[in-house]
Amino acid sequence: MNFELSRKGQEYLEKTKKFMETEIAPIEDEFWKEVHNTCDPKDWTTWKWPVTLEVLKAKAKKAGLWNMFLPDEKLGVGLCIQEYAHIAEQTGRSFLAPMVFNCSAPDTGNMEVLWRYGSEAQKKEWLEPLLKGEIRSVFCMTEPEVASSDATNMQATAIVEGNEIVLNGRKWWSSGLGDPNAKILIFMAHTPDPSKGHHQQHSMVLVPINVPGVKIERMLPIFGDIDAPHGHGEVSFTNVRVPIENFIGGPGQGFAIAQGRLGPGRIHHCMRCVGAAERALELMIDRGMSRVAFGKPILELGGNKEKVADARIAIAQARLMTLYAAWKMDTVGNTEAMTEISAIKVIAPNVMQQVMDMAIQIHGGMGVSDDTPLARFFGAARTLRLADGPDEVHKRVITRIELKKRGYGQKNIPGKVA
Amino acid sequence: MNFELSRKGQEYLEKTKKFMETEIAPIEDEFWKEVHNTCDPKDWTTWKWPVTLEVLKAKAKKAGLWNMFLPDEKLGVGLCIQEYAHIAEQTGRSFLAPMVFNCSAPDTGNMEVLWRYGSEAQKKEWLEPLLKGEIRSVFCMTEPEVASSDATNMQATAIVEGNEIVLNGRKWWSSGLGDPNAKILIFMAHTPDPSKGHHQQHSMVLVPINVPGVKIERMLPIFGDIDAPHGHGEVSFTNVRVPIENFIGGPGQGFAIAQGRLGPGRIHHCMRCVGAAERALELMIDRGMSRVAFGKPILELGGNKEKVADARIAIAQARLMTLYAAWKMDTVGNTEAMTEISAIKVIAPNVMQQVMDMAIQIHGGMGVSDDTPLARFFGAARTLRLADGPDEVHKRVITRIELKKRGYGQKNIPGKVA
Amino acid sequence: MNFELSRKGQEYLEKTKKFMETEIAPIEDEFWKEVHNTCDPKDWTTWKWPVTLEVLKAKAKKAGLWNMFLPDEKLGVGLCIQEYAHIAEQTGRSFLAPMVFNCSAPDTGNMEVLWRYGSEAQKKEWLEPLLKGEIRSVFCMTEPEVASSDATNMQATAIVEGNEIVLNGRKWWSSGLGDPNAKILIFMAHTPDPSKGHHQQHSMVLVPINVPGVKIERMLPIFGDIDAPHGHGEVSFTNVRVPIENFIGGPGQGFAIAQGRLGPGRIHHCMRCVGAAERALELMIDRGMSRVAFGKPILELGGNKEKVADARIAIAQARLMTLYAAWKMDTVGNTEAMTEISAIKVIAPNVMQQVMDMAIQIHGGMGVSDDTPLARFFGAARTLRLADGPDEVHKRVITRIELKKRGYGQKNIPGKVA
Amino acid sequence: MNFELSRKGQEYLEKTKKFMETEIAPIEDEFWKEVHNTCDPKDWTTWKWPVTLEVLKAKAKKAGLWNMFLPDEKLGVGLCIQEYAHIAEQTGRSFLAPMVFNCSAPDTGNMEVLWRYGSEAQKKEWLEPLLKGEIRSVFCMTEPEVASSDATNMQATAIVEGNEIVLNGRKWWSSGLGDPNAKILIFMAHTPDPSKGHHQQHSMVLVPINVPGVKIERMLPIFGDIDAPHGHGEVSFTNVRVPIENFIGGPGQGFAIAQGRLGPGRIHHCMRCVGAAERALELMIDRGMSRVAFGKPILELGGNKEKVADARIAIAQARLMTLYAAWKMDTVGNTEAMTEISAIKVIAPNVMQQVMDMAIQIHGGMGVSDDTPLARFFGAARTLRLADGPDEVHKRVITRIELKKRGYGQKNIPGKVA
Repeated sequence: MNFELSRKGQEYLEKTKKFMETEIAPIEDEFWKEVHNTCDPKDWTTWKWPVTLEVLKAKAKKAGLWNMFLPDEKLGVGLCIQEYAHIAEQTGRSFLAPMVFNCSAPDTGNMEVLWRYGSEAQKKEWLEPLLKGEIRSVFCMTEPEVASSDATNMQATAIVEGNEIVLNGRKWWSSGLGDPNAKILIFMAHTPDPSKGHHQQHSMVLVPINVPGVKIERMLPIFGDIDAPHGHGEVSFTNVRVPIENFIGGPGQGFAIAQGRLGPGRIHHCMRCVGAAERALELMIDRGMSRVAFGKPILELGGNKEKVADARIAIAQARLMTLYAAWKMDTVGNTEAMTEISAIKVIAPNVMQQVMDMAIQIHGGMGVSDDTPLARFFGAARTLRLADGPDEVHKRVITRIELKKRGYGQKNIPGKVA
Repeated sequence: MNFELSRKGQEYLEKTKKFMETEIAPIEDEFWKEVHNTCDPKDWTTWKWPVTLEVLKAKAKKAGLWNMFLPDEKLGVGLCIQEYAHIAEQTGRSFLAPMVFNCSAPDTGNMEVLWRYGSEAQKKEWLEPLLKGEIRSVFCMTEPEVASSDATNMQATAIVEGNEIVLNGRKWWSSGLGDPNAKILIFMAHTPDPSKGHHQQHSMVLVPINVPGVKIERMLPIFGDIDAPHGHGEVSFTNVRVPIENFIGGPGQGFAIAQGRLGPGRIHHCMRCVGAAERALELMIDRGMSRVAFGKPILELGGNKEKVADARIAIAQARLMTLYAAWKMDTVGNTEAMTEISAIKVIAPNVMQQVMDMAIQIHGGMGVSDDTPLARFFGAARTLRLADGPDEVHKRVITRIELKKRGYGQKNIPGKVA
Repeated sequence: MNFELSRKGQEYLEKTKKFMETEIAPIEDEFWKEVHNTCDPKDWTTWKWPVTLEVLKAKAKKAGLWNMFLPDEKLGVGLCIQEYAHIAEQTGRSFLAPMVFNCSAPDTGNMEVLWRYGSEAQKKEWLEPLLKGEIRSVFCMTEPEVASSDATNMQATAIVEGNEIVLNGRKWWSSGLGDPNAKILIFMAHTPDPSKGHHQQHSMVLVPINVPGVKIERMLPIFGDIDAPHGHGEVSFTNVRVPIENFIGGPGQGFAIAQGRLGPGRIHHCMRCVGAAERALELMIDRGMSRVAFGKPILELGGNKEKVADARIAIAQARLMTLYAAWKMDTVGNTEAMTEISAIKVIAPNVMQQVMDMAIQIHGGMGVSDDTPLARFFGAARTLRLADGPDEVHKRVITRIELKKRGYGQKNIPGKVA
Repeated sequence: MNFELSRKGQEYLEKTKKFMETEIAPIEDEFWKEVHNTCDPKDWTTWKWPVTLEVLKAKAKKAGLWNMFLPDEKLGVGLCIQEYAHIAEQTGRSFLAPMVFNCSAPDTGNMEVLWRYGSEAQKKEWLEPLLKGEIRSVFCMTEPEVASSDATNMQATAIVEGNEIVLNGRKWWSSGLGDPNAKILIFMAHTPDPSKGHHQQHSMVLVPINVPGVKIERMLPIFGDIDAPHGHGEVSFTNVRVPIENFIGGPGQGFAIAQGRLGPGRIHHCMRCVGAAERALELMIDRGMSRVAFGKPILELGGNKEKVADARIAIAQARLMTLYAAWKMDTVGNTEAMTEISAIKVIAPNVMQQVMDMAIQIHGGMGVSDDTPLARFFGAARTLRLADGPDEVHKRVITRIELKKRGYGQKNIPGKVA
């Protein structure tokens, strides 16, 4: 195990921190206030980003802090997953930073998919503008009608008819669906083929958002927060037709790609969780030391001080585990790192939720309002315990591997979580 | 200990349940949808209640299911706290029911204050319309600038000048401040009097909402939910002048009244928590048994089934403890029931939060959206762990009493939590 | 719900408390020291009770504090389960008291079995001397070779041959097997009968301890504590022959009796858990207030004080739930009280374990030694989470009932835990 | 961060594992059975080790698996702390292995003290035979009369009189005091010196066990287990006189040395915890898959399978955190690694205790007996949460450092835990 940050990683980390301190932190509150004032939460068609976003993106791009997530020397900056994890921790402290650096979900995952599995034409048409930050993208996987924790439940269909693919189905929790820049969807669906195994019958298809038959039904709130102007949406596909070239990697490749897509994405999420928890701990300490009750700073009352230690211990462990998972992905690949990826997917959002809960408690009523980022972070953490495989599915994966290690064989462990 | 429900209590309970099933449950979703469609979350001045509310209130009043919270034979229906607790559990299953029965916070507490401590003139002017359900009221206690868990921190002032009281200060988390029917505020503030003890220097003052100097600053979201058209608001008082007759119980009586006010109010909240948790458990079971993953109903996977038992055990205990506290309040009074009141104030919201968390997990993404009441219940539970004394303050009270029992004397335990 | 203690119950409770304070508490340490000095932990055949035990039993019998567990006016004192629960809480504070009052496990359960299901001859021969406290008894159910949490796994056999029953099998965790006064075993075993259902094929058989073929194999330690001179033993039965009259209630009645036996027994255990936890809380407070570190009593450091509240809340809830279960057993019977019995069987030992853990922590190293009762209580609590159905089996029962309530039918819920 | 195991570390690790598999595992049960049969738990003077111990030690020494804990090329094998941590994890799976490799507490800590701070004469007389494994040693720090979590409470005294040191006081939880090979004690005591600070007034003194005035009072059980033939003892010092040369590092150096001593010792303990937990997880899986209840392997019932994942996650995190702490100690020193040392001192024993609790539950009654190592491991884990600074003191340290980082200054954080 070696997760020493390389000199190059260190440089990017330092530059990212400085950029965040000098360019993002001073305007972030104002930025979200503008969002709040301009976007009607009930009508996503009115949503737009403050112009500041593009200004910041241009600055970040110029500073070379751009597409750092992509482990490609030319298209990204050539950081490995473990190196980028350190940077994602920093960006996770802010809701704005990931977008400024063109490193935000779900685009990062979608770009990785196109980078790894896309055809040259697909790359030209969609990957390029995504990498430039000109457009945004959506990943349509979860469905409202079935338990999506078992991906084989998927009901949406992608059927080949001549040289077209006909798409039908309904998806929800499609993040970024309300984003004014969202132009392209990756739609995952069932492509029945009795000659193949259960995990070779799903496809990923590129669907421009304005194709006939694609209908955005609504945006979904998270604990009442509609997440404008990005949004998590519900979208229906009714006899949508796209050219057969829009399969990514060909029909039936959906699960294989999903596995590849989700591994790094989970790690990015987890590191952002660590960063968010770290920021919450800072807020908690500052608040707890600046408010007085019963003659003492709040933080010194009862068990509050111990909670600082509890938070530190939990965060430190989550960070190490995430780095370890990242290092394994870099060195032995996602399949070998399955225990660690699943472990961190359970740990990081849970730790983040717990630390937010503690920090909210120290803040009193302010903690649940939008005067601090705590409530929004809380919602993000709570949601992440469900997204990309709920806690229970990841524990299931871990247990299977443990049983297998002791000789209690299980068939096909990989491919189960998607 | 005897918390057998009396025949009378049983009758009210049954009637309440039936009314909720036949009158409220069938329209509740529609009701909140109408609220959602008509109230602009960003502009509380647009808020209004669907007309259904008054229709339902009239029906409830006619059915005698009205002001059941008030232990007064004439003004209420004469149920004791423990009897009413059973009813509050039922109403807690719904966000609408408490209002329909004129039994919702903060009015219930405010009515109790006026009923117990109000002058005849105050009762005539404010208690009567409140009991009739014609207006609503607000309780202004928590302040943004100090740690309000220690009520002696309060900075707002109520100073007598001639035959007027001059009020200054800023309050937040004043529930119902955005309600179109809110007409009267109870304002708690410091009335300095060096001749008196720390707990005899605070007053409660009646302040009509439209008096000059009262300015509603904003509504505060709870995890992004603005709770329209009721709202939790921030309000400033700048040289507000009201007649000296507006003191409730006279200057310096604030803490004594607050103690009396909060005891029953906490119990009501706690029983509603139990009811909400009970409803969540039902939703969790139904969802978990109706969705299938990996070949089984979700609820039968991994540890999910055990969570049903965990929830049942926790709810059953919270219910018993609340009834026990209520019974003690009825029989030996709030002071003797202090351990139990504080205990249940810690337990009930925490149990509610935990059960909501479990139920959300079983619901997947739907659980954090507004397609079920779970997310809103979650926010309510989380907030209640801070309101009416945070968990930590109640534990502090319990510990002090325990130490005192063993001879480790503490001066003036009562009066500390307000 | 009414668990008001009757006047009669109150009187017995007061007398029990006084007896414990004046007769037992002053000599208990000395008593166990004598046990420690005289009993060789490695050789149970040397075990004997200090003579004090018989002296105290005689006094208790004379004071009428005798067989209080038995809800029979003539043989016991005629207390119902809920009344006795209050008394069991008191006796649970001590390891000696239950024996002094002839109210200790496993005899109480065994006496109940004989009282309810025994023939006149069986009562004469075994129940009478047990009720007089002349002999002790053992319940042989758990087996080393199978998962005994599922009672249908039982391998021991009780086969009728002519007018004899032939017994074979091996049992362990037979409590009291090492007791010098143990004279009679209740042996539960399989009596195969293909014409009957799964739960009608087990029998309980009375087996005098000195019958040929009964071999005490060894005593088992609990965390290193051998529990001399009572002990939990492993015993083999090899072609043991007893008269056919030794069936209790006839062949095939084992499960039915076990259900009846275990309900009250569980409640007794649980109330003793509550009493033990209460005592630990007292010790924790006294220790924590009398030792100083970093300039303060230990209890006032960090989160220690909150732990007092946590313990109080947990104990108060466990007590209420146990009383509630007892009240339901008294009023509607064991079957209707199944949720509550299982709930309390989970809660009480877990609460006891947690409170012991907290109290040990406050005591430092002393806490794990035998200088306080905490370590022994801890072992008892930990073991009780396995005995009489492990936590998991009780949660399983609770969940089934919940599912059934919501219409997700399960066949034959009763009879599953034995 | 780089905790890649070096090639050298890897080799020692492999050799250690192989030695344990081939030499220790096959005889360990028999070894402890012999201990059980030959040592009278009530009379420590009868205690002796099976001769096998010396045979194994000779083999281990010959194999070069000897004193691996000591980061000294000549006296040990020259492994750094992080390298040795991997080995300690392996030895922690067994109660015997640490002794076989001459790497068991408290000798390792005592040897480090002598190695770092001892005079040449002290090294010759005591370090040499310890390194050879000819004798064993005891560390006498904790006192029965005070809260030893605050080391400044210490009451024992070491007063210089002429060229002698006069020692008085009483110590307990002196591990190894009952060991037949224990020859030398390190006695920590107060050497009052008003001219010095609070943390410069304690000394460590070498005291041969047979010096007049040293009286072994008794051995203390841990949950009933007396830990023969090693034992944790209580010992009194009454006017014990030793030459002034017996100060280690001079008078007043006690705290400085203790700090140095405890850091690595804690890490060793923690890695052994990880190894023990790992072994328990294996036992839990094997047991859970081999026993059937309700038609399934126990492990597949209810939430049991999730517990495997919970255990794996907890263990993996504890291991990473321990290695990280070790790496920091190796690279930046104990003072800079204080957060991590304290964190792991909290985490590792707690994780071990939790995993033991889970594994015990899966084992049923067997789990609390001595038929598996689980119960003994449990006692060790529970005790370790108190030894070398209780959890609370370590959390206190962590919180102080966090507060300091945010500018909430605290004087002299180091030196507080001893």
